[in-house]
Amino acid sequence: PRNHTITILAGDGIGPEVMDQAVRVLEAAEAKFGFTVTRTAHPVGGAAIDATGHPLPPETVAACEKAQAILFGSVGGPKWENLPPDLQPERGALLPIRKHFGLFANLRPGVCLPALTHASPVKQELIADGFDVLCVRELTGGIYFGSPKGRHEENGEPVALDTMIYHKSEIERIVRVAFTAAMGRKKQLLSVDKANVLASSVLWRETVLEIAKEFPEVELSHMYVDNAAMQLIKRPGSFDVLVTENLFGDILSDEMAMISGSLGMLPSASLGNQREDGLYFGLYEPSGGSAPDIAGQGIANPIAQILSLAMLLRFSLGETEAADAVEAAVAAAIADGFRTGDIATGRDGETKVGTVGMTDAILERF
Amino acid sequence: PRNHTITILAGDGIGPEVMDQAVRVLEAAEAKFGFTVTRTAHPVGGAAIDATGHPLPPETVAACEKAQAILFGSVGGPKWENLPPDLQPERGALLPIRKHFGLFANLRPGVCLPALTHASPVKQELIADGFDVLCVRELTGGIYFGSPKGRHEENGEPVALDTMIYHKSEIERIVRVAFTAAMGRKKQLLSVDKANVLASSVLWRETVLEIAKEFPEVELSHMYVDNAAMQLIKRPGSFDVLVTENLFGDILSDEMAMISGSLGMLPSASLGNQREDGLYFGLYEPSGGSAPDIAGQGIANPIAQILSLAMLLRFSLGETEAADAVEAAVAAAIADGFRTGDIATGRDGETKVGTVGMTDAILERF
Ligand SMILES: CC(C)[C@H](C(=O)O)[C@@H](O)C(=O)O
Ligand SMILES: CC(C)[C@H](C(=O)O)[C@@H](O)C(=O)O
Repeated sequence: PRNHTITILAGDGIGPEVMDQAVRVLEAAEAKFGFTVTRTAHPVGGAAIDATGHPLPPETVAACEKAQAILFGSVGGPKWENLPPDLQPERGALLPIRKHFGLFANLRPGVCLPALTHASPVKQELIADGFDVLCVRELTGGIYFGSPKGRHEENGEPVALDTMIYHKSEIERIVRVAFTAAMGRKKQLLSVDKANVLASSVLWRETVLEIAKEFPEVELSHMYVDNAAMQLIKRPGSFDVLVTENLFGDILSDEMAMISGSLGMLPSASLGNQREDGLYFGLYEPSGGSAPDIAGQGIANPIAQILSLAMLLRFSLGETEAADAVEAAVAAAIADGFRTGDIATGRDGETKVGTVGMTDAILERF
Repeated sequence: PRNHTITILAGDGIGPEVMDQAVRVLEAAEAKFGFTVTRTAHPVGGAAIDATGHPLPPETVAACEKAQAILFGSVGGPKWENLPPDLQPERGALLPIRKHFGLFANLRPGVCLPALTHASPVKQELIADGFDVLCVRELTGGIYFGSPKGRHEENGEPVALDTMIYHKSEIERIVRVAFTAAMGRKKQLLSVDKANVLASSVLWRETVLEIAKEFPEVELSHMYVDNAAMQLIKRPGSFDVLVTENLFGDILSDEMAMISGSLGMLPSASLGNQREDGLYFGLYEPSGGSAPDIAGQGIANPIAQILSLAMLLRFSLGETEAADAVEAAVAAAIADGFRTGDIATGRDGETKVGTVGMTDAILERF
């Protein structure tokens, strides 16, 4: 049978408990679709700080290097909040992994199912049919990693600076990912920039226009980031695929996730270059955080982690059928009324379940 | 009687028609409160491009230099959209004015009156009592003006970059403005940054913590910009004053304005250093745009322009009583059910009015 290798980094908070459920689904997929996945678990984030003093121990990185993909839980919590930025669970683990593995393409679906519009903070009438937006965020460039970055003094006064920098090739590759994604969807791409102020955005927009020639079927539009932050709220249903640079993507994809109302349902993928076999090395993680306030209570929604597994099966292992089956089983469990607390309304026809109960419902439909 | 001098830059789209209404209110204020305002009108934005080839002609700047304040309408429209950024109505007029006059403090109220929550895209139950947030945005620093900014080649490949840079003193002065504003309100200040990634944000946060010692009564908190973009949607009512750097402020204050649902009601002030008499040179303008789609139809909401005039009376002319009276008259007209199309629901008790009718209603209550 086909054998694959992945690394599991469950992390902190609800990470371990939702990861356990994703592993149950993975086992079911192995049994049903005739492949095996060798997996090793390693510490990351706060758990790794407690164990080794560092949020991303070298052993964890080494293990990831031997794998085809990383299934990531979530990291962070009040215990580690006051550490210096570089040693914090989130920043100190995620940024180095992204850079080390060249994970430049962050795919973040912002989906609100028609059955779950009540969970969105946005008025029902604006999102009656739900919506499905894919945010494509550049993840290894821009102001996150640009140099110079740091602090100096001018006439005794502290000055600090960061550099938002893009090479044309960095823009080209992420924009191609976005156009390709749009081709498999509604063929609409919105590029978000601040080309009326930023030189990097002017190059961004120029490059988008060039790459657009390779995808004549895709309807392309542009929006300034301030306007995008407004329009996402007013008419989320009018967007298909959105592509933007690292910092704008950080802000807009979180905004989009909040608008969807179901943070506990949203997976994400961070991918590197496509390999010759058409697959990607990638890191897959829920869009939400480690939710320390509800950790250990068995009530967290496992769906974001389970759908992250589905993305991993699709993009890194090429197990497309298994990925489709996982996504279909999740949709079926929702359609049949199973609800964790974050998406429940208490209406007739709902069955309120916990972390394990939701996974049971999904597995029964798998 | 006290005599003041202001410059009126009405601009494009709905600018001229709402400006006419603000001038009617200004005349009423002069009559009632015994002061006079010498005013000259000058072209700006698209209108200035058409007349002189440039969105901010030197004569316009010279006129502003002789005044205590600028009452600004709005600029831009499809006709000038494809010009190079520097020559576009918005960017080419606003950025140079801000820099030339050192208007570093942008105050943008994000207000949703309890009577107007229906106009917000956010669910009624999240904003039942309305809300009132003041965004304080740094306006002359950061990535907007930092150098180096531009483009070069590396091994034949185009590279573009922008510099987000802050001197400590730039942070101090805007943060003091924000703390001072909080002292006059609910004494709560939220500082938004990205201190887990940006060196400029680390200096920002440090400086905020230092200035906080001067304002021990104000309850201070911090949030990363991605999280702020989420929380503003989920619980706008929990914020009082928000302070942030230029680019984050551009995005978040527009997001906040959209959440309030009444863009046509929101004024803004861009202020320089406080003078010895306690007043400021400032530019006052509606938060919304030039709305070319409804220009010339007499249906635009004049309230944002009229409340911008109120801010001008307060901060630049020191006519506090007149400012209070304008704001009270606007509130009374809303309370009495007068509604332009953008805030109407068609419910009983509403009187639908146009641009002039709304101003009539305000003046009757003045
Ligand atoms: C933790 C932080 C550095 C990170 C980012 O800003 O990229 C996070 O917000 C994210 O979006 O994954
Ligand atoms: C027109 C543009 C340069 C400007 C900005 O980004 O500051 C505008 O969006 C604003 O917020 O006033």
